[in-house]
Amino acid sequence: MSGTVYGVGLGPGDPDLITRRAARLIAGAAVLAYPTLAGAPSFARSIAADLIAPGTREIVIDLPMTTARAPAQAAYDRGAAAIAAELDAGRDVIVLCEGDPFFYGSFMYLHARLTARYAVEVVPGVTSVTACAARAGLPLAARNEALTVLPGPLPDAALRDRLRDADTLILMKVGRHLPRLRALLVAEGLADRAVYVERASLPAERVLPLAEAPEVAPYFSMILVTKGADPWL
Amino acid sequence: MSGTVYGVGLGPGDPDLITRRAARLIAGAAVLAYPTLAGAPSFARSIAADLIAPGTREIVIDLPMTTARAPAQAAYDRGAAAIAAELDAGRDVIVLCEGDPFFYGSFMYLHARLTARYAVEVVPGVTSVTACAARAGLPLAARNEALTVLPGPLPDAALRDRLRDADTLILMKVGRHLPRLRALLVAEGLADRAVYVERASLPAERVLPLAEAPEVAPYFSMILVTKGADPWL
Repeated sequence: MSGTVYGVGLGPGDPDLITRRAARLIAGAAVLAYPTLAGAPSFARSIAADLIAPGTREIVIDLPMTTARAPAQAAYDRGAAAIAAELDAGRDVIVLCEGDPFFYGSFMYLHARLTARYAVEVVPGVTSVTACAARAGLPLAARNEALTVLPGPLPDAALRDRLRDADTLILMKVGRHLPRLRALLVAEGLADRAVYVERASLPAERVLPLAEAPEVAPYFSMILVTKGADPWL
Repeated sequence: MSGTVYGVGLGPGDPDLITRRAARLIAGAAVLAYPTLAGAPSFARSIAADLIAPGTREIVIDLPMTTARAPAQAAYDRGAAAIAAELDAGRDVIVLCEGDPFFYGSFMYLHARLTARYAVEVVPGVTSVTACAARAGLPLAARNEALTVLPGPLPDAALRDRLRDADTLILMKVGRHLPRLRALLVAEGLADRAVYVERASLPAERVLPLAEAPEVAPYFSMILVTKGADPWL
């Protein structure tokens, strides 16, 4: 009997936003796996740290700091192979995932490599989208409003039409694109409704009007634009 | 000192998908509040039931079964007043919210009525969107893909352009609109990529190709359309 691989969402960063199911799976795990970026400490592991029992085996999937696909593919191949070896030995593997495993998460690359041969269960997590809205005190969508999530690295042309169509707009992965995204929102007349949030739910969290956002934003930052649903019903 | 009102997301239905923070707040609550619909049992309360201590005071906000605004407004006015009376007496109030409080949740109507006068904290929850994706085994969005969430009650014209623009499309609140939405997706050539999910994470959950979905769907149902990101990286 092969083991099962669990892709476990940990939420945006506050360990208290881990679900009960995720907490139990992590605390009872024989084998954990998680990504790191170029040898840096793993953010996913840091979220779950208080739950990890001494002696738990840990598979570190070290991802290269590059936008080239081949080295990243090789890293996921190696990670999937290491996980598969545990599954073949009958052990379950708990993969730690920032946020939600299927929402801009790297777990999907392991899922693609393992799902044909092994039992996979995904445990959904709180996404950074609702965490940012909670911290900003901004309702995201009500009634028949449309909500659109756009990655900030998209070029302006791809962003412009979509942000006009949305009732609520989420710009993810803002990072170094912040000055360009701010200019785009100013040009579209949306800047005064835009809120900048970085590191939602973590001690270093910041929530600011977009006009006061820093020129240099971290990768874990987001812009929320709500076009003014009537919150009163 | 007035109390604090907490809008607490409970996730899609499985009590195991409640976060640790939400669980602790509910278990320690002196006063809970939650909506019901026309006197029916409260879905939010049912999710949290195993956490509610005997003797907890419960404020039931009974919403009328109507699409007219005035009766619903009056119900939220009464609910907010009942909560405010507890806050004025120095007691915290935990408001139970299905899914996430700010993602198509009725908590935002209480938030609008209370936030100017009282401290409000929102505890984000797992949304039905990522819960459905997890159960369907469908990654939602990767890299620079755009994700759009559309309420099913929107008219076809409002849906059509937006569903063409999205890389991943989520149709919420499907319910009685299912036949119309299915016809629209067939016309747009998207039906064979569409998955129907009802009551994700609950015992009565169903995950089906859209072609096999029932003619009559419950309110808690969703259609996911993924346009085929390369899952392999």
